[in-house]
Amino acid sequence: MAATAALSTDDRQDAPRPAFPPPPVTARPIDRQAWIDAYRVVRAETERRAAPLSPEDQQIQSMEDASPTKWHRAHVTWFFEQFLLAEHLPGYAIHDPRLHYLFNSYYVAAGPRQPRTQRGLITRPTCAEVATYRAHVDRAVEALLGQASEKALADILPILEIGLFHEQQHQELLWTDILHAFAQNPLDPIYDEGWRFPTASPEAGSVTLDKGITAIGHEGDGFSYDNESPRHDSLILPVRIDRALVRNRDWLAFMEDGGYGRQDLWLNDGWYAAQGQGWEAPGYWRRHDGQWLQASLAGPKPVDPDAPVTHVSYYEADAYARWAGRVLPTEFEWEVAARNGDLPDAYGLVWQWTRSAYLAYPGYRPLPGALGEYNGKFMSNQFVLRGSSVATPEGHARATYRNFFYPHQRWQFTGLRLAEPLS
Amino acid sequence: MAATAALSTDDRQDAPRPAFPPPPVTARPIDRQAWIDAYRVVRAETERRAAPLSPEDQQIQSMEDASPTKWHRAHVTWFFEQFLLAEHLPGYAIHDPRLHYLFNSYYVAAGPRQPRTQRGLITRPTCAEVATYRAHVDRAVEALLGQASEKALADILPILEIGLFHEQQHQELLWTDILHAFAQNPLDPIYDEGWRFPTASPEAGSVTLDKGITAIGHEGDGFSYDNESPRHDSLILPVRIDRALVRNRDWLAFMEDGGYGRQDLWLNDGWYAAQGQGWEAPGYWRRHDGQWLQASLAGPKPVDPDAPVTHVSYYEADAYARWAGRVLPTEFEWEVAARNGDLPDAYGLVWQWTRSAYLAYPGYRPLPGALGEYNGKFMSNQFVLRGSSVATPEGHARATYRNFFYPHQRWQFTGLRLAEPLS
Amino acid sequence: MAATAALSTDDRQDAPRPAFPPPPVTARPIDRQAWIDAYRVVRAETERRAAPLSPEDQQIQSMEDASPTKWHRAHVTWFFEQFLLAEHLPGYAIHDPRLHYLFNSYYVAAGPRQPRTQRGLITRPTCAEVATYRAHVDRAVEALLGQASEKALADILPILEIGLFHEQQHQELLWTDILHAFAQNPLDPIYDEGWRFPTASPEAGSVTLDKGITAIGHEGDGFSYDNESPRHDSLILPVRIDRALVRNRDWLAFMEDGGYGRQDLWLNDGWYAAQGQGWEAPGYWRRHDGQWLQASLAGPKPVDPDAPVTHVSYYEADAYARWAGRVLPTEFEWEVAARNGDLPDAYGLVWQWTRSAYLAYPGYRPLPGALGEYNGKFMSNQFVLRGSSVATPEGHARATYRNFFYPHQRWQFTGLRLAEPLS
Amino acid sequence: MAATAALSTDDRQDAPRPAFPPPPVTARPIDRQAWIDAYRVVRAETERRAAPLSPEDQQIQSMEDASPTKWHRAHVTWFFEQFLLAEHLPGYAIHDPRLHYLFNSYYVAAGPRQPRTQRGLITRPTCAEVATYRAHVDRAVEALLGQASEKALADILPILEIGLFHEQQHQELLWTDILHAFAQNPLDPIYDEGWRFPTASPEAGSVTLDKGITAIGHEGDGFSYDNESPRHDSLILPVRIDRALVRNRDWLAFMEDGGYGRQDLWLNDGWYAAQGQGWEAPGYWRRHDGQWLQASLAGPKPVDPDAPVTHVSYYEADAYARWAGRVLPTEFEWEVAARNGDLPDAYGLVWQWTRSAYLAYPGYRPLPGALGEYNGKFMSNQFVLRGSSVATPEGHARATYRNFFYPHQRWQFTGLRLAEPLS
Repeated sequence: MAATAALSTDDRQDAPRPAFPPPPVTARPIDRQAWIDAYRVVRAETERRAAPLSPEDQQIQSMEDASPTKWHRAHVTWFFEQFLLAEHLPGYAIHDPRLHYLFNSYYVAAGPRQPRTQRGLITRPTCAEVATYRAHVDRAVEALLGQASEKALADILPILEIGLFHEQQHQELLWTDILHAFAQNPLDPIYDEGWRFPTASPEAGSVTLDKGITAIGHEGDGFSYDNESPRHDSLILPVRIDRALVRNRDWLAFMEDGGYGRQDLWLNDGWYAAQGQGWEAPGYWRRHDGQWLQASLAGPKPVDPDAPVTHVSYYEADAYARWAGRVLPTEFEWEVAARNGDLPDAYGLVWQWTRSAYLAYPGYRPLPGALGEYNGKFMSNQFVLRGSSVATPEGHARATYRNFFYPHQRWQFTGLRLAEPLS
Repeated sequence: MAATAALSTDDRQDAPRPAFPPPPVTARPIDRQAWIDAYRVVRAETERRAAPLSPEDQQIQSMEDASPTKWHRAHVTWFFEQFLLAEHLPGYAIHDPRLHYLFNSYYVAAGPRQPRTQRGLITRPTCAEVATYRAHVDRAVEALLGQASEKALADILPILEIGLFHEQQHQELLWTDILHAFAQNPLDPIYDEGWRFPTASPEAGSVTLDKGITAIGHEGDGFSYDNESPRHDSLILPVRIDRALVRNRDWLAFMEDGGYGRQDLWLNDGWYAAQGQGWEAPGYWRRHDGQWLQASLAGPKPVDPDAPVTHVSYYEADAYARWAGRVLPTEFEWEVAARNGDLPDAYGLVWQWTRSAYLAYPGYRPLPGALGEYNGKFMSNQFVLRGSSVATPEGHARATYRNFFYPHQRWQFTGLRLAEPLS
Repeated sequence: MAATAALSTDDRQDAPRPAFPPPPVTARPIDRQAWIDAYRVVRAETERRAAPLSPEDQQIQSMEDASPTKWHRAHVTWFFEQFLLAEHLPGYAIHDPRLHYLFNSYYVAAGPRQPRTQRGLITRPTCAEVATYRAHVDRAVEALLGQASEKALADILPILEIGLFHEQQHQELLWTDILHAFAQNPLDPIYDEGWRFPTASPEAGSVTLDKGITAIGHEGDGFSYDNESPRHDSLILPVRIDRALVRNRDWLAFMEDGGYGRQDLWLNDGWYAAQGQGWEAPGYWRRHDGQWLQASLAGPKPVDPDAPVTHVSYYEADAYARWAGRVLPTEFEWEVAARNGDLPDAYGLVWQWTRSAYLAYPGYRPLPGALGEYNGKFMSNQFVLRGSSVATPEGHARATYRNFFYPHQRWQFTGLRLAEPLS
Repeated sequence: MAATAALSTDDRQDAPRPAFPPPPVTARPIDRQAWIDAYRVVRAETERRAAPLSPEDQQIQSMEDASPTKWHRAHVTWFFEQFLLAEHLPGYAIHDPRLHYLFNSYYVAAGPRQPRTQRGLITRPTCAEVATYRAHVDRAVEALLGQASEKALADILPILEIGLFHEQQHQELLWTDILHAFAQNPLDPIYDEGWRFPTASPEAGSVTLDKGITAIGHEGDGFSYDNESPRHDSLILPVRIDRALVRNRDWLAFMEDGGYGRQDLWLNDGWYAAQGQGWEAPGYWRRHDGQWLQASLAGPKPVDPDAPVTHVSYYEADAYARWAGRVLPTEFEWEVAARNGDLPDAYGLVWQWTRSAYLAYPGYRPLPGALGEYNGKFMSNQFVLRGSSVATPEGHARATYRNFFYPHQRWQFTGLRLAEPLS
């Protein structure tokens, strides 16, 4: 992925097979080393993303939706300690029981926790102490993987696997959260001088879906989240979906046509969000000397007309689509087009808003226990995004993946592609 | 409808044909008198509902979601003046141009307006002056209907029709809003001593839907709102829907089982809404001498175990369904069951929450002009309710009708029925 | 007083002696009729002020600081019922015990009460029912005054007296609160066509106080509030006080000099209040066709350059004084100047902000019991105003009277006069 | 001072004369070295206080009233750069012009600035970069002091002097702010293991002031702030002031008597502050195993009954005094008693609330230019505290010093002593 490449362009040469994702949890015999490798790759990526940040940078929570880098590093570690080591490694000594309260995120069944809006108040443990915590847990996890019986591993691997995907989600947040934090600083700090937004495919045109019943949702033995199941039939109505993402040049046309000021284009809640926040352009855009700049991990950069628009909310995406006389695709339309391989730039650039509200699939059942809170309890007031973004770690994305955010949120790398019903 | 009957039990005898709804707007020849009758019936019903209220009662806005009775009476009148008379009655003199600002609700295209949260600040015009305004507009509308050419009527009747259905919606709000206002008063004012919640059907069991593609949405020449169109194919998956509404006795079991305190049963946003509002029971319930009372239009009354539960939010309905190991039906499942005639108590008791987010039907287009704001701009963050309630005026409901509210709202007569996927 | 005169210009002819204030409570023999007359005069003035208001007008609370007219009428009545009748009239039947909760204002010792911000939610009792309540209490009070023994009257009269002054304070609030309410209505309702702000004295120049110790605070057997005592020595430093109030023409010069935009003129808290509220002129001023209008009880009227400025907050008064290179007088300087008779327009136009914080006099003791909450508990964060305003009822003002409001408040008839230290 | 001693018990032996405060600015000949020494002492104390804190600790702003350690260190440096170097050192190169925006505090006349509530968002410059900034400015200030002409020094020294006192104020805030930050962390971080609250004097009894006119305010050639002038006559009324501070044992008696729950003891605004914040004890107190602990710079410690109560707001101090049947002294009474030398523990333990509102002395004039904003613009809504606290740096306190805070604030080391009027 290009974003990764910006930090490490030459260390992925000739890799015959990436360590991540790991083998299916059901694969036999169990390849312990493959799991250890996958664990190391994921853990190292977190540290690689945190490395350019000073202790001060890692401390702050720049808004309620964001979390400190240090918190991300510790929370994903706590996840392994809480759900894997404490349950499955006999004699494991909790690194520091007081951390449980601080680094639980929202697993109510796992006990009380630091209020999420006050994560930035916790200066101790320091970054260095969090590194010690991570090392402690890493040693224990690797020991567990080395020594557990095959039988025990059958229970352990599904938890390890979700822990790795979970950590990858926080890697993405780590980047989007620090981007938000840096964007608040008039000194325009730079995370990585060499970071560049990857180039979008030059393709145009559209892909057409015919009417028909098709199965939607995950199948097979690879990893998926509970919210991608059960696989179920869905009716697709005839539709045409753009192969190209909406680009900054398109968005500028919308802006120049007064799109942010025409209430008739907006959902009611969206209009009040836009007015309340003073939106006049995508997130992180500002005018400077007659030019639009957008904050990025490489600092403010001129808006590239050819790049996909990003940091737009659902409300903006919806208004744009209305202005263009089009619609967003449903998440099902997107999934069908993507699994057919017809959707350029489906992954690795921007998450793509769909017009589907985030709801349970028919017959959905959350995981048992605390992990049941992972996805199911957020099934109201949010919209589904599909694909993946420049910030998504390698191996994380798939066609059935359902991301979701509130319609007013735009600090993620969120963009859109358009569609048109044919019936 | 029972609620209406409570106020006027004997005036519906032998009615050969109700004046409302009026004939289809496309019916020829045009029956002017039928339209005048329909107009009179609807307008009279508003006044009948306002009649028991003092000028003080009609003045207040007891929360942001509610509006003063006086405002409802004036706003529905403004609707006819603005969209019908000003456009179509040559020489019509606006009753008082200053009222336009006060009684526009949210039609941005129709100009600026009194902020909706400040409707309770407007003491003038008084109730008596609003009655004068209503009479002025009534005379003009009836004159218009009497004198317009057939050709003009073709344009006029669709606006008149939507104005009548619009006024009926405000009749329902008038009741739910004054119920909220009275519930704030420790003196427990009574709107109508004789008001009673209608008795639910004793039926039990369930209705089963088989898998299949079916058309959803309005068809035919009767009235419907834009959001019921276009009629389109939808895939129904096998499901069983309860014939009975959830009753207070069921809800009490949920409460006694700690339902309001078990976070695992709740959507995340719902949990915070419930905690923030201190919900421990449905809306308007309070304990008194070891007994549950619920505020009603007849004042506080003991909770009837056999009556359908009402004044529950989507969040509560969803938590209840999870507790019961069931789900809410989708709006499409509800529509199919209802149009098959298999759903007792579909109408006239409580609006029934569905698990469908309120979104546009494929190919949806709003009405042109200011009326395009009627339904389309609310298509985010809300859930669909189907059926109708004890407060819904006669002739207003139909199987394709889509009502919608935010998931935290519960001052409407909102309840639920359960379903179970069979696949 | 002019304001009163505007409503009733000819009914005060040849009045040999006003009924209010009543005789000192210590005067012997007790003149029962004089007390009954005083009671009637005060009670009638409340009704006179409420008379032009519709039930709708009397219902609303247009902001947290204001109260509904109906509430004022009932609350002052409750005061007599609670502190006078219930305690001192044997066999008195409380009119409706439920009113106690609704119409207690803030007397914690007198029990729980309707939250002050929700007084506008109470539509019942209606205005007519409040009138009945008033009549019930009036009969009982007059009966009590007629039948009580001399000995009992010694206890009764001090409570009656404070009740009368208390009701007068609410008469002033009744006017300022309805002015605020009407000012929110784009229809510009008029309370009294004939109402005019009284003409200020044409006098100019200043009065000089020499350095010296002088006694401050109430003495004698007339009525005073607890916060005017104990009378105590205070050191006056040499000062010159303007005989004229600051007028609108002066204020316009301040505005034209950018006074509302120059942060250096403002207290820090004042600057943020002014910015937060968007102040650019005194309260109720608005520009119309190139002219400044100010809302009044007669509706919006052109700002009269010769009239004293009114509806200015302490923050504005302080900024104005700094701009003028002057100061506000202390409350002690004001009292000395006023009791010497040297201060034109001390009474009957606008309350005059002083630069004295509202604090206890040395040795201050509140009244015993619930009435102890009358003045003492407000002694922080407020500033003292002296004099009286156009809205103050006759007989209410005196040189030692200490009014107090928060520095950001400006819905009262508040103005200022300037001073200059001479040392 | 004891607090300082806790960190460095043995480095003050035999000090013949402290370097701070420096000579009067009017002393001739000018002792350049004494000024350089004073500068070094003050600057070093800031760094000494920051030294135990990690970069993470120095980053956070734990509430709106507090600021990050790093910000304090930079802001006091900016003060010298802005008001001293930029004005008076020819050819001085601003270290980084972008820091001006970040580290201006509230000097409006000095230009726009980072909003004070968002100081915690600025992760760059890092602590290390702030150290570089400090060194840059230190070199320049020392060079300026070494090379400036006598004539230039006459202008320079008053600014240098206010800059030093200003930095000392931030040293005190640095401690109180980090104490607040650490108190939010359930891990109870420790700033200095050896820190102890100094022991209060064992003295009891009272000092009596007779009635009389006395001069209040600063005189002489030592440093004072503008708000201590002009010196002016004030009338003292007979009063008795306790020699002892109120102690924790006294406060516990107040608590045990229900002091926090008796509304009759509280100012109205105080009651709502206490209820809104859930106050049941002084700041930083919490119960643990049946014992009261109070957070301190050495971590949570058992409440010492003999120590002066601290971290109480004005509202609490006032309620306590009312409960005790006493009053707080006025700031003038305090000043007279303190300058007579009769007030043990006047300095070095806790700031002592007075019952004087913070207002201008008669004839007060702020400094010209941006420094005029230093004290004058805060003269509303605050109360005066006198003395100094355990956190106040050496040489900073004097009998005429006027500290001021809002009545609800209690994160400073604030306590009280009682008084009793004798007239």
